[in-house]
Amino acid sequence: MTDTFGGRLAAQFAAGRRLCVGIDPHASTLAAWQLDDTAANAERLGREVVAAAAGEVACIKPQIAFFERFGSAGYVALERVFADAREAGLLVIADVKRGDIGSTFAAYADAWLKPGSPLEADAMTVHAYQGLGTLAGASEYTSEHGKGLFVLSATSNPEAKAVQLAHVETGETLAQYVLSGARDMNAAQGGEVGSVGVVLGATVNLDDFAIDRATTHDGPVVPVLAPGFGFQGASVGEVRELFASLAAGVLVSESRSIVNGGADQVGSSIALSNERIMEAYA
Amino acid sequence: MTDTFGGRLAAQFAAGRRLCVGIDPHASTLAAWQLDDTAANAERLGREVVAAAAGEVACIKPQIAFFERFGSAGYVALERVFADAREAGLLVIADVKRGDIGSTFAAYADAWLKPGSPLEADAMTVHAYQGLGTLAGASEYTSEHGKGLFVLSATSNPEAKAVQLAHVETGETLAQYVLSGARDMNAAQGGEVGSVGVVLGATVNLDDFAIDRATTHDGPVVPVLAPGFGFQGASVGEVRELFASLAAGVLVSESRSIVNGGADQVGSSIALSNERIMEAYA
Repeated sequence: MTDTFGGRLAAQFAAGRRLCVGIDPHASTLAAWQLDDTAANAERLGREVVAAAAGEVACIKPQIAFFERFGSAGYVALERVFADAREAGLLVIADVKRGDIGSTFAAYADAWLKPGSPLEADAMTVHAYQGLGTLAGASEYTSEHGKGLFVLSATSNPEAKAVQLAHVETGETLAQYVLSGARDMNAAQGGEVGSVGVVLGATVNLDDFAIDRATTHDGPVVPVLAPGFGFQGASVGEVRELFASLAAGVLVSESRSIVNGGADQVGSSIALSNERIMEAYA
Repeated sequence: MTDTFGGRLAAQFAAGRRLCVGIDPHASTLAAWQLDDTAANAERLGREVVAAAAGEVACIKPQIAFFERFGSAGYVALERVFADAREAGLLVIADVKRGDIGSTFAAYADAWLKPGSPLEADAMTVHAYQGLGTLAGASEYTSEHGKGLFVLSATSNPEAKAVQLAHVETGETLAQYVLSGARDMNAAQGGEVGSVGVVLGATVNLDDFAIDRATTHDGPVVPVLAPGFGFQGASVGEVRELFASLAAGVLVSESRSIVNGGADQVGSSIALSNERIMEAYA
């Protein structure tokens, strides 16, 4: 029996590590590193971030779109970044936001969660437009192979509300329905921290989305992948206030604030973020 | 000014071509072709389908998950299938169901719609969980470079309803909201057929999803990518009854019924489907 993904997250949390470093080789980020916009340079940036992050952070989160734009060459680059991260013992969350039905979703799970896949990560981000039940296509990996999922719940972009505030049959908003669904899936697995998490933007006003951050629940802590800290404006010092009962599961996701200063700054930016996280959770 | 994607679809419709051949190299499909489950064989299957489909169908629709599961090797295979399809003059819909916000969605658009990208297709499928407004990240390609989008609206899997029947602020179901949004985007572009379509499963009861198939609208026809014909049980003969006012935009998507009989059967299966389509639209 492999450790669960939630179990490995719990170990990171216990060690005070909650920082998730995003690897988003956008053309402008590569330019800040004095690098041309090529797949080889996306690889170089990714591998340097992995080297600086090893042993220091809870996880890395490559944004796959910025590799995919180079086609197969981008995927070759990505595989090398993943290989370095696995060797360094870093948890990898593949930010792919995949979703589909039946055997097609299962094929995405094979790509990103199957042991031995060249793109094997520890967890992937997914969307549930085609229903939360579709995520069962990954259950072999979450239950038997220690893998995890992060389901899109509420995101910070202004266009999101029209969809994420839609009301499902229970009366919940779609955003809360996803959170409730993750909690249910985790209850079935048990343990201290669940293997199915949600994506909740740190700059989102959770009350606007009718997301219940007040109630304390029994059962596993729901992992919360929370982008929006640092460059996008949320302050780590406010994490307990922002997330309330959900704070115990938060992974503080930062990308541009760590990476955009160039290769020399990554280590010191990680150290600074870690300090702020330690303080916030003291 | 490049032709719009909608304009190229209109030309296919005018020629009586509405068949979209899915290329889903699932392990079981490869087995039906007496092929092992490898990226090289996914390429072989894809290229043979392209060769048989050239000049005979409106478009092909590779299901990217079944290539992605092989990592970069799968993307190399996919690029070769795309290259053949472009050379054959076939419209290509990349069934990727991507979605994200801001510059990340734009990076997906760069991957799949940018002229000269190794993965350049004519259109891609997308999800709008993060809001219809995020699709604006592809608007340069849909307005200036003749590319198209198909947004997930209502799908046939039983788990889908809990989400797709959620009610947005206008009172519409999410499925209808996506359809209305596509219609609005197309109205801005004009032309006979729009460049922003929807995905509507052919085995979906559209009335259950409160999708308006009765009203005839002015403005461009909304393209409807409709999987579920053939193997999954919907009959092409019923397309006008099923889709009513939406039937004018339907692309009849078939995969297993065309491909699973093995390489020798692809041509005859395409011919048979074309006949049924001609009859249904006579």
